[in-house]
Amino acid sequence: MALKDVVAGARNEAGIAAVLDTLKQQLGDKLQTGQSFREQHAHTTTYLTTQLPDGVVFAENSDDVKAVVKACGAHKVPVIPFGVGSSLEGQVNAPMGGISVDFSRMNRILSVNAEDLDVTVEPGVTREQLNTYLRDTGLFFPIDPGANASIGGMASTRASGTNAVRYGTMKDNVLALTVVKADGEEISTGRRARKSSAGYDLTRLYVGAEGTLGVITSVTLRLQGIPEKIAGGVCTFDTIAAACDAVIMTVQMGIPVARIELLDAVQIRACNAYSGLSYEEKPTLFLEFHGSEETTALQSAQFSEIVEECGGSAFRWTSDAQERAKLWKARHDAYWASKALAPHLDALSTDVCVPISRFAECVTATQQDIIDNAMLAPIVGHAGDGNFHVLVLFDGKDPTSVAHTEAFVARLNRRAIEMDGTCTGEHGIGQGKMSFLAEEVGGALDVMIAIKRSLDPDNIFNPGKLFHAQ
Amino acid sequence: MALKDVVAGARNEAGIAAVLDTLKQQLGDKLQTGQSFREQHAHTTTYLTTQLPDGVVFAENSDDVKAVVKACGAHKVPVIPFGVGSSLEGQVNAPMGGISVDFSRMNRILSVNAEDLDVTVEPGVTREQLNTYLRDTGLFFPIDPGANASIGGMASTRASGTNAVRYGTMKDNVLALTVVKADGEEISTGRRARKSSAGYDLTRLYVGAEGTLGVITSVTLRLQGIPEKIAGGVCTFDTIAAACDAVIMTVQMGIPVARIELLDAVQIRACNAYSGLSYEEKPTLFLEFHGSEETTALQSAQFSEIVEECGGSAFRWTSDAQERAKLWKARHDAYWASKALAPHLDALSTDVCVPISRFAECVTATQQDIIDNAMLAPIVGHAGDGNFHVLVLFDGKDPTSVAHTEAFVARLNRRAIEMDGTCTGEHGIGQGKMSFLAEEVGGALDVMIAIKRSLDPDNIFNPGKLFHAQ
Repeated sequence: MALKDVVAGARNEAGIAAVLDTLKQQLGDKLQTGQSFREQHAHTTTYLTTQLPDGVVFAENSDDVKAVVKACGAHKVPVIPFGVGSSLEGQVNAPMGGISVDFSRMNRILSVNAEDLDVTVEPGVTREQLNTYLRDTGLFFPIDPGANASIGGMASTRASGTNAVRYGTMKDNVLALTVVKADGEEISTGRRARKSSAGYDLTRLYVGAEGTLGVITSVTLRLQGIPEKIAGGVCTFDTIAAACDAVIMTVQMGIPVARIELLDAVQIRACNAYSGLSYEEKPTLFLEFHGSEETTALQSAQFSEIVEECGGSAFRWTSDAQERAKLWKARHDAYWASKALAPHLDALSTDVCVPISRFAECVTATQQDIIDNAMLAPIVGHAGDGNFHVLVLFDGKDPTSVAHTEAFVARLNRRAIEMDGTCTGEHGIGQGKMSFLAEEVGGALDVMIAIKRSLDPDNIFNPGKLFHAQ
Repeated sequence: MALKDVVAGARNEAGIAAVLDTLKQQLGDKLQTGQSFREQHAHTTTYLTTQLPDGVVFAENSDDVKAVVKACGAHKVPVIPFGVGSSLEGQVNAPMGGISVDFSRMNRILSVNAEDLDVTVEPGVTREQLNTYLRDTGLFFPIDPGANASIGGMASTRASGTNAVRYGTMKDNVLALTVVKADGEEISTGRRARKSSAGYDLTRLYVGAEGTLGVITSVTLRLQGIPEKIAGGVCTFDTIAAACDAVIMTVQMGIPVARIELLDAVQIRACNAYSGLSYEEKPTLFLEFHGSEETTALQSAQFSEIVEECGGSAFRWTSDAQERAKLWKARHDAYWASKALAPHLDALSTDVCVPISRFAECVTATQQDIIDNAMLAPIVGHAGDGNFHVLVLFDGKDPTSVAHTEAFVARLNRRAIEMDGTCTGEHGIGQGKMSFLAEEVGGALDVMIAIKRSLDPDNIFNPGKLFHAQ
């Protein structure tokens, strides 16, 4: 199947002008077309060139979203949803122009059902906002990608992060969505019941669709009880292979760690410098256990045995909230810490994920590749999931540096795919990984494209993402 | 959107004859057209009229499946996958005739990756076969719908059962599938990595599609470590509301029960008679805890406090394997026990699921409805999920009895839907719940139909299921 008619090429100037005109009349000041607004909405934490939308609509409710989709549908103009812009693969870029739908004003928490451990929010609610709101209920939303991302954006990229080893990804924690489809009508994809066999799983279809099948207007999430006890700790290893082995044993033994994060020696150096810490510059695991006094102590003891077996340092653990906060702040700032190693350079984050049995092999081979090519590229990983990121620092203005980086990324993605892994564990495809999606999924790409065509026949939803122009 | 062209009406006699001819040549004795074979493959555990296929292909590998789909695709003839025939909503019926694909010979376990806690199997492998095979590895596959269903069938109906409260449903435990699509080509829907953001979640789309989008040819499943300790027990309550309240508190407190099953007094009476037991004929909870010696003891103690608060009987628990086996055998035989209450009658199992906070209300109202209408209809429930079944005994030959039953089922399904629940927690839609699917999902039905049309334009895959002819 040729992809070229899925990815439209040129800007539809007449359509864009008509849509801007219509939306100005319908939405007034909610539509902004100034250069600075447009630039802000193409800005992403990414190495990719920014591509500006023609207008930004600050949607205040579903009706505003429907108005945008109806106008854009009528004139075949792109609609690009925008959360906070923390996506990494160009998901909010507007390669063919169009309307960016900003969700910052759709940030209401619509209903908390504490008895059912669920909550329904508008897509612009951020992760931290939600957890602050929930604090008094004794519940929390566990998915933590590091960035203070919007819930709509997290759903769209099937985000996960440090807690996924225990609590799963957005796929596992979204109960239902409302979505505006190509005809401008809103549907609900599911109910609040905890399971259902009623027809196709549309919730899971829109989660991870990166805005290419419709625009999410609300998200119902599963919540968890705040653990009675949270304990965390750090241990170091002489080699990255030994650190990976400790992770593999932990997962295989079924120890229900809440977080188990790998940082290589270069990343530790970066974190020490950026966050004012003094960790030993060695491959390191950051851990967290959730449970009761007894169960966290038990898990910690079991993990300590594994560390000893793998030749790691004594596992230093703490349940002091401030100590833990410092540790995880450093982990969450890893991207910025790495960038600070060479502020004049650009940064690119890879995102492979492999079966846990291949994790050590994949990380080790990748680290060797980094050394062989004399790259500055710290490694951090959601190790318990077999997912790790290489933060490649490179000179985006130097074609040789760009070419080297691209070649490295291609080798890494193919290494993971060959190990029955994926080129993206949690960041999504966006613009950056379209060719690797095709390599990874093979014939299934035709199925994805058929679904895209059936639900978005005029290709208005976030065009130029996921599927390559050919 | 009109549905009438999604559900073809009439038998395509010329096409069926041509397909039988082609397959006889290509597959020889793997194709059977005798009456008894055809009857066996329309036989399901259901109240619905059987509708025979025209031929049964005993597929031995993917190539056989491809041959069937290609022949049927060429002549626009239905393809109906068949596992063991334990589905409850007519999923294996052939309302327009066609070819039943029997998977009993595709029952190989293709690879066990103990290190990654996953396994890949052919669709005809049954749940019990898989767990017997895995026993020496220390791993098990937790989904347990009671019947010794095939893994392919369980994936297709998004099955769950007694363990789902702890381990999730098929949605959560299928890592990847291979599927033969309408052009007869086979695709893979995912990798063995434990998470991925690579494009649309096709795995979750085919799981629960009831064979209407393609034919599953292999399933990769997540496995769990066999718990160090399994403990179970029983307690009774004076009212069903009190039993439900105990369940709600257990779920809300986050006690990680592996099973928590509700049986009403009528169901206990049936089980006592059928399985030679002597449980008190009162609303009863059957429980199971998985973990270590310490954690199961802790969970059991926590649960005992809840029982006391809800006025239940002392919670009698046991970790004796034989005692536990007897208890769960009785639970799994509940359907047959209920039927045995009145062997001359027909039986229909409902399958609503509601948010846990509405569980007591829904069960209580339903029990009152049963009493008000003088029905014989025991209740069993996967209470921790808010899912329960009413086993309605009725006289299928008496139009008044049928009408009463249909009216009761309609009231029950609507009661659940009004509570933000679903008409089917785990059995699927099949032929039996098509109108309730439409009521439940509203405008989302159009999206489902659009997907169906895009992936199966000639409506060859299990036609006459999910979507109503109109």
